[in-house]
Amino acid sequence: MVGFEKVANGTKGSLPSAENTNTTNRSPDSILNLVQGDPTVFEPYWRNQGDKCSLVISGSDFMSYYSDCENICWFLQPQLADAIRNIHRDVGNAVLDGRHIVIGTGSTQLFQAAVYALSSPAGPEPISVVSAAPYYSRYPEEIEFLSSGLYKWGGDANTFDKDGPYIEVVNSPNNPDGTSRDAVVNRVEGRLIHDCAYYWPHYTPITGAADHNVMLFTLSKCTGHAGSRIGWAIVKDIEVAKKMIKFVEFNSLGVCKESQLRAAKILETISNEYSNLGCTKTENFFEYGQRLMAERWRKLREVIKRSKVFSLPEYPKECCNFSGEFMESHPAFAWLQSKGNMDAEKLLRSHKMMGKGGKYFGVDSKYARVSVVGREEDFNLLLERLSAIKGVETE
Amino acid sequence: MVGFEKVANGTKGSLPSAENTNTTNRSPDSILNLVQGDPTVFEPYWRNQGDKCSLVISGSDFMSYYSDCENICWFLQPQLADAIRNIHRDVGNAVLDGRHIVIGTGSTQLFQAAVYALSSPAGPEPISVVSAAPYYSRYPEEIEFLSSGLYKWGGDANTFDKDGPYIEVVNSPNNPDGTSRDAVVNRVEGRLIHDCAYYWPHYTPITGAADHNVMLFTLSKCTGHAGSRIGWAIVKDIEVAKKMIKFVEFNSLGVCKESQLRAAKILETISNEYSNLGCTKTENFFEYGQRLMAERWRKLREVIKRSKVFSLPEYPKECCNFSGEFMESHPAFAWLQSKGNMDAEKLLRSHKMMGKGGKYFGVDSKYARVSVVGREEDFNLLLERLSAIKGVETE
Repeated sequence: MVGFEKVANGTKGSLPSAENTNTTNRSPDSILNLVQGDPTVFEPYWRNQGDKCSLVISGSDFMSYYSDCENICWFLQPQLADAIRNIHRDVGNAVLDGRHIVIGTGSTQLFQAAVYALSSPAGPEPISVVSAAPYYSRYPEEIEFLSSGLYKWGGDANTFDKDGPYIEVVNSPNNPDGTSRDAVVNRVEGRLIHDCAYYWPHYTPITGAADHNVMLFTLSKCTGHAGSRIGWAIVKDIEVAKKMIKFVEFNSLGVCKESQLRAAKILETISNEYSNLGCTKTENFFEYGQRLMAERWRKLREVIKRSKVFSLPEYPKECCNFSGEFMESHPAFAWLQSKGNMDAEKLLRSHKMMGKGGKYFGVDSKYARVSVVGREEDFNLLLERLSAIKGVETE
Repeated sequence: MVGFEKVANGTKGSLPSAENTNTTNRSPDSILNLVQGDPTVFEPYWRNQGDKCSLVISGSDFMSYYSDCENICWFLQPQLADAIRNIHRDVGNAVLDGRHIVIGTGSTQLFQAAVYALSSPAGPEPISVVSAAPYYSRYPEEIEFLSSGLYKWGGDANTFDKDGPYIEVVNSPNNPDGTSRDAVVNRVEGRLIHDCAYYWPHYTPITGAADHNVMLFTLSKCTGHAGSRIGWAIVKDIEVAKKMIKFVEFNSLGVCKESQLRAAKILETISNEYSNLGCTKTENFFEYGQRLMAERWRKLREVIKRSKVFSLPEYPKECCNFSGEFMESHPAFAWLQSKGNMDAEKLLRSHKMMGKGGKYFGVDSKYARVSVVGREEDFNLLLERLSAIKGVETE
């Protein structure tokens, strides 16, 4: 799933104010908003590509609702389908042979489409949707907001013990804590959704091609183009795919063509570098991303090593098939734990940083999540302010 | 609401096959699909505009989730908000002063956002959503597909007699029958959504600036750019607007930026013609649209006048404030009635035309809806095939 999060300043659901999200020319008193995972870290890379990935759309292009009437996903632009297949082939992070691609308005919409597909037709009671804590905070919100009779939020998968069918969402690497995950309930009536938003080389070693029934990916976390709202699902069972397509049809009558074309262009630019069709002198996007995230995490761990108040999870070194090197994960979020078991969100706030506290993810408030995929100046300010916390503080 | 409709060939919910939607080089035996209201009629106009409305987006543009943090609708691009205000000012079809604009992935998403906003927090039982028959066939589908505990489909507003709060959708001009409408239930506990998708000069005389609590518009029906999936709501009450924004946030984390920019460009092109900033020698889009739709309807009425099997509704001549002329409505759909009370959809089908039967719109099967906003060759084939139906036929 995408990592956008609202300002978690105690008023759940409030929108970010201009002051909170201003990212340039900060005054020392300004609040540093690290709540949402707006992946602007990759902007400089794309700026340096110049016209190579510019998209031109004329006034009469792509006016129809339809993209491809020969595809069950009739609103999927064929060039985007090709680009998605190519990028997964290049990276080796997912099996696509014989699978169906369903496009969505971000993986947010597709997560709901998948839950709908796996819960309809309705059973005698709503099916429970669970995920192991700490779970992505938007799962319960998205499941609950329409009070559907098809499904309901069932909480932490680790403690789920209800009989009958259920849906488990496996987010791997996991938002918020960056860990690699497998399903935990493992009962025969389980239906699985694998949220693979962060299974890309800049965040984690690619240890194999993911091969699950329903896998969700999003352009936001792959290339950083969150504004395009493009997500895709890779689905084994054609009947599940058809129901997901039906959801997107009911929900928004398809997915905007302009963003699909943009996504295709961006993904093609990366793939072309592998095919030596493009400019091979510049660093490839994923190499750039790996280097950048490794550098950020090196700096962050350096600061946290000296910190008396926060710790970070450790990630195992694994061989990344993509880079051919042993490497640790470098997640999009830092999952901070207060050493003194204090409320980590409040602790950050008292030092002019806004993170999202553990309670939103179904765990203790001694944890808080902060984004490390924002702009350079924000990341540097995070390091600076974390460094400035001198000792164990009281609330 | 947008007018996309699936193939209604008896298998409700089946997707259009390539054969059914092929619009060029038809064989005499090919099926003419007039089920959906894909507004490709306007393509030639936009093609003739050349580079004037071409959009160029570079690889690093608009990567963030955010568009405008000072707006409650934080995912609305400011240039689109301006373009929407300008086009309504130019056309005079809606009051915008002091109103809030909420952007959506087509008005399909916004319709659901409005229903959510007007039905939450939940009451003791789901609130009934009604609309006067013949009603847009997607309203019941969109209301029912998630079995929400907040709202449920209440059917034809004309016969609705349940006490308590309710939501009435007023679609004016109405899809499928093209009539101008007002609310019909008119009780104090009513909450209204005005679906104004077709309240543009090419379809109907603009008799005044619409001024309702929640009004829905869509680029699809305004300029023909259905593929962009851009809709907007004009909302009086800020609390309702905030809930709609929350729905779009939960549902898709905002609306794709590329389509918003395209929509802004297209709408600006039209507005510039009024401001004499653009090329004033070419016919303005709405003048073109009025002329084109009037011409299609003239031809259609000519054929129907001679038809022994079908009739069409008559529309009153009213003064259009936009054009300054008395004119009839020229709806996007023809609402055909079988003179012999036969099943109109089947009758069309037996002459190789696919329309959508009355039952989908909550009325008798002697009615069927066919699109008149398709490509020129499809419209001409419709005329040809309607003309070829010689007499009263039996099923």
